[in-house]
Amino acid sequence: MAQISQSRRLRRTPFSDGVEAAGVKGYTVYNHMLLPTVFRSVEEDYHHLKSAVQLWDVSCERQVELRGPDAARLMQMLTPRDLRGMLPGQCFYVPIVDETGGMLNDPVAVKLAEDRWWISIADSDLLYWVKGIAQGYRLDVLVDEPDVSPLAVQGPKSDDLMARVFGDGVRDIRFFRFGWFRFQGRDMAVARSGYSKQGGFEIYVEGGETAMDLWNALMEAGRDLDVHAGCPNLIERIEGGLLSYGNDMTDDNTPHECGLGRFCNTHTAIGCIGRDALLRVATEGPVKQIRALEISGGPVPGCDRLWPVRAGGKLVGHVSSAAWSPDFNTNVAIGMVRMTHWDAGTEVEIHSPDGARTAVVREKFWI
Amino acid sequence: MAQISQSRRLRRTPFSDGVEAAGVKGYTVYNHMLLPTVFRSVEEDYHHLKSAVQLWDVSCERQVELRGPDAARLMQMLTPRDLRGMLPGQCFYVPIVDETGGMLNDPVAVKLAEDRWWISIADSDLLYWVKGIAQGYRLDVLVDEPDVSPLAVQGPKSDDLMARVFGDGVRDIRFFRFGWFRFQGRDMAVARSGYSKQGGFEIYVEGGETAMDLWNALMEAGRDLDVHAGCPNLIERIEGGLLSYGNDMTDDNTPHECGLGRFCNTHTAIGCIGRDALLRVATEGPVKQIRALEISGGPVPGCDRLWPVRAGGKLVGHVSSAAWSPDFNTNVAIGMVRMTHWDAGTEVEIHSPDGARTAVVREKFWI
Repeated sequence: MAQISQSRRLRRTPFSDGVEAAGVKGYTVYNHMLLPTVFRSVEEDYHHLKSAVQLWDVSCERQVELRGPDAARLMQMLTPRDLRGMLPGQCFYVPIVDETGGMLNDPVAVKLAEDRWWISIADSDLLYWVKGIAQGYRLDVLVDEPDVSPLAVQGPKSDDLMARVFGDGVRDIRFFRFGWFRFQGRDMAVARSGYSKQGGFEIYVEGGETAMDLWNALMEAGRDLDVHAGCPNLIERIEGGLLSYGNDMTDDNTPHECGLGRFCNTHTAIGCIGRDALLRVATEGPVKQIRALEISGGPVPGCDRLWPVRAGGKLVGHVSSAAWSPDFNTNVAIGMVRMTHWDAGTEVEIHSPDGARTAVVREKFWI
Repeated sequence: MAQISQSRRLRRTPFSDGVEAAGVKGYTVYNHMLLPTVFRSVEEDYHHLKSAVQLWDVSCERQVELRGPDAARLMQMLTPRDLRGMLPGQCFYVPIVDETGGMLNDPVAVKLAEDRWWISIADSDLLYWVKGIAQGYRLDVLVDEPDVSPLAVQGPKSDDLMARVFGDGVRDIRFFRFGWFRFQGRDMAVARSGYSKQGGFEIYVEGGETAMDLWNALMEAGRDLDVHAGCPNLIERIEGGLLSYGNDMTDDNTPHECGLGRFCNTHTAIGCIGRDALLRVATEGPVKQIRALEISGGPVPGCDRLWPVRAGGKLVGHVSSAAWSPDFNTNVAIGMVRMTHWDAGTEVEIHSPDGARTAVVREKFWI
């Protein structure tokens, strides 16, 4: 496998020193920033994530900040999810679409106040779209990327670890809510969220000064909990059906194709730029959709490109993410499958670089 | 050094099979796509680039295509360079700025026709900005990323190699012009351009079908010219003063700070979104600017973050790119230096991770 050539353009994070000291072995690049992919091995990291607690440097979840009188209006222009009922202190998963209904990003919107929002983004320069829209519509709003680096604490022992550093109050944070908690005299937004199904938190660390102190404090406090550096885990996220923008969906896809129709209130999200295009999709439904796929045989090779899904000699979809799951003793995969073959139980053929394999469409993901 | 974890999100290119067969050893990620960084060694690739000819997979220079009645108007909104005199068949290096004059990208604009342009982009999702502007201003233009993958042929023997595959007509292409040339029955735009100072071409390959045939045809035709797979070379590009967006400049910088004032016709570029902000900068001049710096001592470590530049105990700038130059027998570097210390011959102190070194500001780059 090839090495990654580091440069300023692939930005380091305030936690990079900790990540390196923990022996990071692989990186990907996400929002022009380094994102660790493996520490001990993907499988070892996977078992540990499910049984203990990990610190994840997810600084690459950059924020787009909206501030000003038109902030809420702009936020609603970006997404088909109806935001009228959203309160400060809430986090909403919001598909972001262009005028054709194509997905530009699938971030989490964090409502700090009526006139102040953070959009915690997936891997695309959403800042450019938001700035372009704000400029073109002459909105009264400031849009920029603040110096905020999220640190995730994930795994079943997350509550115990977090309580030791931030106090027992963190235990009361509800899912996709956040509160303000102090560390070294600074208030930090702490949300119950994260890119795993093992439970945990994301701490929005403003500025870099306290970042390594926080990292070290959590490492120190969690010694007997077997805390370890970790990162979003390929196997666990496929088992849990956590989609990855750029892998499982792109701007070619509508939210409905991605199974995100439940986050689209197309009839009431007045002002959303892609609303007209999505009204039709919402009525007729998509002709292809994300599905969980179980692929037969031994461990599949790394899925670094789309793998064709065929049936009866015809192309009926693509696999976009796949991995061997030790816990389920099978290959777990995410793919986009045409309506004709998306029913649970349908047998299809996957063409991975090492040959053809049979696969079955599942009703649901694994966890 | 850590490995790169491949996934669909880090897109392969139509030339990836050729790149792998040639023994690529390192990658970076550029516009969500794999960009090779080293084949034999950075130094060996450097000497070879200066003496022979290389094929570069620069598919990551993605295109933003503008098509329609408002294409030319939109193009002028994006850049402070006056485009009125630009003819179809020309390529212009165009700083792209936001409403504050901050640089969003530094692409090459390719004028195919009055109503059809390609913007061959550096590493940021310029598509999002252009789509946002087109949407917000309700322009009559289609904006998308076409399936076009540039292949560069660079080095002193480029003309000879290209003539063997495309005919002697390529020798007549003038610098930053392009013409249409046939390969396997397809017309391809071939420009005299590229990210080195060694001369050469960029072939805009539409679709992936003929890509590997073209790669193989060039490899075959250039055997006796010692053709080899290559890539933008860190040492050579610093010697030549070729800036890298994300490394040497970001959206914090104006074109004038980047020494790109000669590409800004601030008084006549009517319609440019950042024009108001840049008018002041153009009059007063920047307070810091890109400079070539010669750093003393043996080879510097890899420059993966900004290195402070200090003088008399004060911070006066940052180095953003640096490498040991075998041909000039010194460390060559690019940095942003404050006005008080940017005159040629000024001695400053560079703080790289392996300690402090003296450096001298140069009048010009090396080649």
